[in-house]
Amino acid sequence: MSPSGEPPRIDGERLWRSLMASARIGAGPAGGLRRLALGDADRRMRETFVDWCEAAGLAVRVDRMGNVFARRPGREDDLPPVLMGSHLDTQAAGGRFDGVLGVLGGLEVVRTLNDHGLATRRPIELVDWTNEEGARFPPPMLASGVFAGVHDLDWALARTDDDGITVAEALERTGFAGAAPVGGRPPDAYFELHIEQGPELEAAGAAIGVVTGAYATRAMHVDVRGETAHAGPTPMAERRNALIGAARLAVAVDEVGRRYAPEGKATAARLVLWPNKAGILPSYAQLTVDVRHPDAATADAMMAEVAAAMPRAAEAANVALEAAERWRFGEVPFDAECIELVRRAADDLGLERRDMASQAGHDAYHLARVAPTAMIFVPHRGGITHNEAEDMRPEEAARGADVLLRAVLARAER
Amino acid sequence: MSPSGEPPRIDGERLWRSLMASARIGAGPAGGLRRLALGDADRRMRETFVDWCEAAGLAVRVDRMGNVFARRPGREDDLPPVLMGSHLDTQAAGGRFDGVLGVLGGLEVVRTLNDHGLATRRPIELVDWTNEEGARFPPPMLASGVFAGVHDLDWALARTDDDGITVAEALERTGFAGAAPVGGRPPDAYFELHIEQGPELEAAGAAIGVVTGAYATRAMHVDVRGETAHAGPTPMAERRNALIGAARLAVAVDEVGRRYAPEGKATAARLVLWPNKAGILPSYAQLTVDVRHPDAATADAMMAEVAAAMPRAAEAANVALEAAERWRFGEVPFDAECIELVRRAADDLGLERRDMASQAGHDAYHLARVAPTAMIFVPHRGGITHNEAEDMRPEEAARGADVLLRAVLARAER
Repeated sequence: MSPSGEPPRIDGERLWRSLMASARIGAGPAGGLRRLALGDADRRMRETFVDWCEAAGLAVRVDRMGNVFARRPGREDDLPPVLMGSHLDTQAAGGRFDGVLGVLGGLEVVRTLNDHGLATRRPIELVDWTNEEGARFPPPMLASGVFAGVHDLDWALARTDDDGITVAEALERTGFAGAAPVGGRPPDAYFELHIEQGPELEAAGAAIGVVTGAYATRAMHVDVRGETAHAGPTPMAERRNALIGAARLAVAVDEVGRRYAPEGKATAARLVLWPNKAGILPSYAQLTVDVRHPDAATADAMMAEVAAAMPRAAEAANVALEAAERWRFGEVPFDAECIELVRRAADDLGLERRDMASQAGHDAYHLARVAPTAMIFVPHRGGITHNEAEDMRPEEAARGADVLLRAVLARAER
Repeated sequence: MSPSGEPPRIDGERLWRSLMASARIGAGPAGGLRRLALGDADRRMRETFVDWCEAAGLAVRVDRMGNVFARRPGREDDLPPVLMGSHLDTQAAGGRFDGVLGVLGGLEVVRTLNDHGLATRRPIELVDWTNEEGARFPPPMLASGVFAGVHDLDWALARTDDDGITVAEALERTGFAGAAPVGGRPPDAYFELHIEQGPELEAAGAAIGVVTGAYATRAMHVDVRGETAHAGPTPMAERRNALIGAARLAVAVDEVGRRYAPEGKATAARLVLWPNKAGILPSYAQLTVDVRHPDAATADAMMAEVAAAMPRAAEAANVALEAAERWRFGEVPFDAECIELVRRAADDLGLERRDMASQAGHDAYHLARVAPTAMIFVPHRGGITHNEAEDMRPEEAARGADVLLRAVLARAER
């Protein structure tokens, strides 16, 4: 069959078997996945993924951030590749599909092209981005950020988990400290298939979400500094309890979110304390805060309200609060031409589609800085995500991979 | 010299050398001690302490909770012993004197009695109580609580640290899982020398605090249960963020303390979260809360205010809050006769003394349930404690040990 004919359909059963094989690597206690970036389960999943790619005839290359690229040559192999992929790492109590669908859906696209002997003008590459979740190594989307020039390589390699292990050490330990430079070779385009991470598509009865943009997200670590003292005799007026400063800010963040609901969200979900023992007032706390809104100016206004709450929390608890590190994403719009390819693929397949803005962070946001980018969303049960109960039906996954195949194939022939 | 003559004076330089030798075992980065119960440093300190006791001719016995008893026989060796001691474990960022002074001060008393060939009617025992701080294994004063029948032995052995290691496992690892039964043999009396853990004595220019009672203390772990969900798309109204429930309660606890200041104190110093990652709302939090007041009924009223704040925090954060475990101390009064021995010792030494209530928890509170008990406080720099900067002068320590010697000697002849 020639590339100019009707594109082939992916093998939904084979895709589902791959997803279920992945679901056994780092299985969580409640049916989901616990596959933190560059841990033992992530290493085993990546090794399995490399095996699968090589069995599909792809040439695998790992860069210095541990990003794994698997390449299918093009007829004009010197042209920049069409890139597709997502991430295989998960949250500490994550689901089986978040990220994984985009990588294994891309593998299914390659397998299908192989089955039908379809060559493409441009090379096609499949990528697994390291540490997308940021659950182990904040910030999220770390390695795609280096690829896109948002983060410095040495800075990224020096990020640490809560035990003080650096990304560089974890890459060495898992054997994924590759030799290839990170980035510096923009792809022709980037397509990412992902579960919606929300309930809209299911509620609307739509099969495909066409992601036209992202919620603007601003995030920061806030360091809170007090002083250790005995929890018993130290008078209330002399206390400098970092936990109370952080707690006051966490409550304020939640209230900012509620004021901007339903579109706005403000989150405090991580708080690290030291020494964190009952008998001693903690001298240090780090609270991670983020705000999200579809409108960038409103997201800025929300973050300004959080910033205004910091001196109030500091004064009430007699501690010092300071933004230690900031990051943001969701600024760069996706590419009109790539978006149109996704719309057309859904239409040609007779699938109901819906334009929408993404609320979660994705590697695609960083990629949009260096290449024309689009994302494909698919529905999943109840929109539940970052939860072991995350679930979807095989046909929902297959429809997404079919759309991905058509969009990538069209772009690779362009 | 006979027991009926003027009691000898302890060797202040030898006591200080012992304290400084202890200060090198588990030294903290800022000049204090980091010697958490049954960790490696605590094991080395205990081994050193056993060596010192044996060198002083004491017979050492370890019970099933790891409490170390060192015995000096009496002329009438079948009589219940006079017990003295405290604890050698510290907070994660603790000082060099908290607890340590009471144990090594007791050792100095024995060494002094030996130097002067003084026999006593009753045997004298010196004790190091396991895990007084509760910093590693909550609750505090765990092993003296088992000794006094407040806690069940099996329950205490099953307590865990934040890594899930049980007390029983830590006792085995350190070689301090002794064979002797815990308690069941009330001493004739118990004396504990301790730094004041507050600034009153220094401010008043007094050398000795005569502890007449304790602040009533009520404490609990509060479990907060929510649900994991993606920190991005989950609408504010659907969130069940355990961190926000815990933060609201922590703020309420702090406010209760401030309403009852300066005498009352209310503390939230420990908060454990799961998964505690930026991208996912935590489903679980445990906040440890305590309130203290010299008046027991007022402490109860403070705890009732904390309890009333729990359903409000639960409703505001859409989570469940529940008291998982409760403990209390400071109820049992000290013994009038033992207190009088302390007063007389100070007076005979010409030391200015001051009656006071203890605000911190001490093993002596549990011992008071099974034996006549008294405590001796000494001043220290600025009252700073549970802080690596905790400090005192050699003569302040020596005066306390001299008072301890006289009180113990008088009781042991009784």
